[in-house]
Amino acid sequence: MQTIEVEVDSITSLTKELLMSAGINSTDASITAMSIIEAEKRGVSSHGLTRLKSYVERISQKLINKHPKTSIVKNLGSILILDGDNGLGQVVADQTLEYCFNNLKKESLVIASVSNSNHFGTCGYYSRQAALNGYLAITATNAGPTMAPWGGIDPMLGTNPFAISFPAKEYGDFTLDIATSAVAKGKIRTYANENENIPLGWAIDKKGNHTTDSSEALEGTVLPFGKHKGYGLSMVVDALCAGLSMASLSYETESLTKNNSNANIGHFFMFVKIQDFLELDDFSERMENWFNNLKKSAQSPDFDEIIIPGELENKKSKLNNKKININSKTYLDLCTLSRELGVSLDDFLKGG
Amino acid sequence: MQTIEVEVDSITSLTKELLMSAGINSTDASITAMSIIEAEKRGVSSHGLTRLKSYVERISQKLINKHPKTSIVKNLGSILILDGDNGLGQVVADQTLEYCFNNLKKESLVIASVSNSNHFGTCGYYSRQAALNGYLAITATNAGPTMAPWGGIDPMLGTNPFAISFPAKEYGDFTLDIATSAVAKGKIRTYANENENIPLGWAIDKKGNHTTDSSEALEGTVLPFGKHKGYGLSMVVDALCAGLSMASLSYETESLTKNNSNANIGHFFMFVKIQDFLELDDFSERMENWFNNLKKSAQSPDFDEIIIPGELENKKSKLNNKKININSKTYLDLCTLSRELGVSLDDFLKGG
Repeated sequence: MQTIEVEVDSITSLTKELLMSAGINSTDASITAMSIIEAEKRGVSSHGLTRLKSYVERISQKLINKHPKTSIVKNLGSILILDGDNGLGQVVADQTLEYCFNNLKKESLVIASVSNSNHFGTCGYYSRQAALNGYLAITATNAGPTMAPWGGIDPMLGTNPFAISFPAKEYGDFTLDIATSAVAKGKIRTYANENENIPLGWAIDKKGNHTTDSSEALEGTVLPFGKHKGYGLSMVVDALCAGLSMASLSYETESLTKNNSNANIGHFFMFVKIQDFLELDDFSERMENWFNNLKKSAQSPDFDEIIIPGELENKKSKLNNKKININSKTYLDLCTLSRELGVSLDDFLKGG
Repeated sequence: MQTIEVEVDSITSLTKELLMSAGINSTDASITAMSIIEAEKRGVSSHGLTRLKSYVERISQKLINKHPKTSIVKNLGSILILDGDNGLGQVVADQTLEYCFNNLKKESLVIASVSNSNHFGTCGYYSRQAALNGYLAITATNAGPTMAPWGGIDPMLGTNPFAISFPAKEYGDFTLDIATSAVAKGKIRTYANENENIPLGWAIDKKGNHTTDSSEALEGTVLPFGKHKGYGLSMVVDALCAGLSMASLSYETESLTKNNSNANIGHFFMFVKIQDFLELDDFSERMENWFNNLKKSAQSPDFDEIIIPGELENKKSKLNNKKININSKTYLDLCTLSRELGVSLDDFLKGG
């Protein structure tokens, strides 16, 4: 796929401006733009700029609240129940972190249960921030239905991703950030657009047969990763995100690309203050030392290196500190969106 | 495989007597026997009677403490740091639940971090007890090294299982209880004993090549489930169980079947008081209703039924309330062990 190199600063500004011209205030637009561009820097473009169009569409159709105020429904210190006021998920999540970090001044553990939110980008963006503040963090979100229960064919579960992070000295952090599906539906769409087959194990067709035909897969449902285990984990994420918060369960909400009703997405955030268990430095150093030892394992024939979860993405993010490559289709979509919203591309093109 | 039907009461008594004749006191032997037999009733015989021999061996070699006292290293209310005093894992876990449930009278969340323990049976045995008391629970344990880091071939990670449970009205509970490996090494041994091939994806040989040869697999390492995702989850379990507790990480401990040193296994327990989020009945009913709807999904050609995690095992446990079938090899091993320990089989054989 062709890519175009752009300046991080310029593309961040453009993203912010696009959100502002859709009616989002400057602070919230900055928060959202930073999350989107960080995903691009880390090579997770599936959660980056490609989502902007649907965010803007849902805002313009009043399915996302332009001026949300995330409110505290209940605050027990270690438990926070929050209502995201149907804001952009990134804005809701940012506010949630602030509330949680505040409670963590006194508490050893905090769980925030959030309803009435929307797509918030990657789970790892938030768990990583917590890890860099000395917490072990679990973050999760449910999502519109694209996956069937194990053995079934009706889309009733979301890709329901979660992330787990903790600090690890020179590595910065360990971050496992995974969907409970084998693949995002969007990835199958990319294959279908290019008339390519998908690997077996990604999806079933609408009759429930395993398929490598990307078009048939698009009409079917994605499969969980690791068979019944990923299915179970997808249910766990739904129970944590919606069961505790009274947000919609995946099968009660709708996909980001549909525009019929408020999503009422639920999030789950959990933070553990490591220093209440042991010295933070001791923990962090032991993790680093463990990672170093794991990386010394002899390797399988097909592998060049043992990678710690999050390690590659951290390296990419540093490497892409000034410039990132975005794919040409995303670039063109951004230009179209800019024209539609009346946002000048002059500054961006000068920087790009 | 041939099986022999035995009375639950008789086999529980025999298990208890065997542990007592190895030096375990009556209460601790009961606790351990109940955990072992519950695994058999649920059809999880990999964590049942087949483990008894190695428990007894480790006790006789003074690698497991016969008279442990699980002590509180630190109690912050929501955080409990416990030292298992090198007791049988089941005994340590039982004491941990007691401490946690006590703290949960005041706290909304409790995490217990346990070091200096041993194999505790199934994770689900403990998370399920919590679910039936109104908690959402996560339990995990690390284990001796049998799995390589993703891309490697040296055994440095354990099967590192975890379980997540919550209440769900008529279903009793939802319990996802899974290893982070594709399979337990013991299962490969069963295949090797019968000269059968294993499915691709279970293991690699000692050079790191994927193999279906069970003997070659035994000399190699088991693979994680879901490729890099299971690998990441195995690391998370190790970090939670050993990183927070200062127990041994999987690569610092040894397999249950080796008898060289204290295991210093670590456990992680987390309990969330659901009623601090919403009415417990409302939660439990909503989960039940959700499960009922998931089960209505149209089915894939190869499936007869949509199963909720834990549902089959709960049904089996009820069905096996009076009698269970144990495989003939386990039965013969029990008889041998009884002779070795001088435990009379008269009562058992009358009941069996």
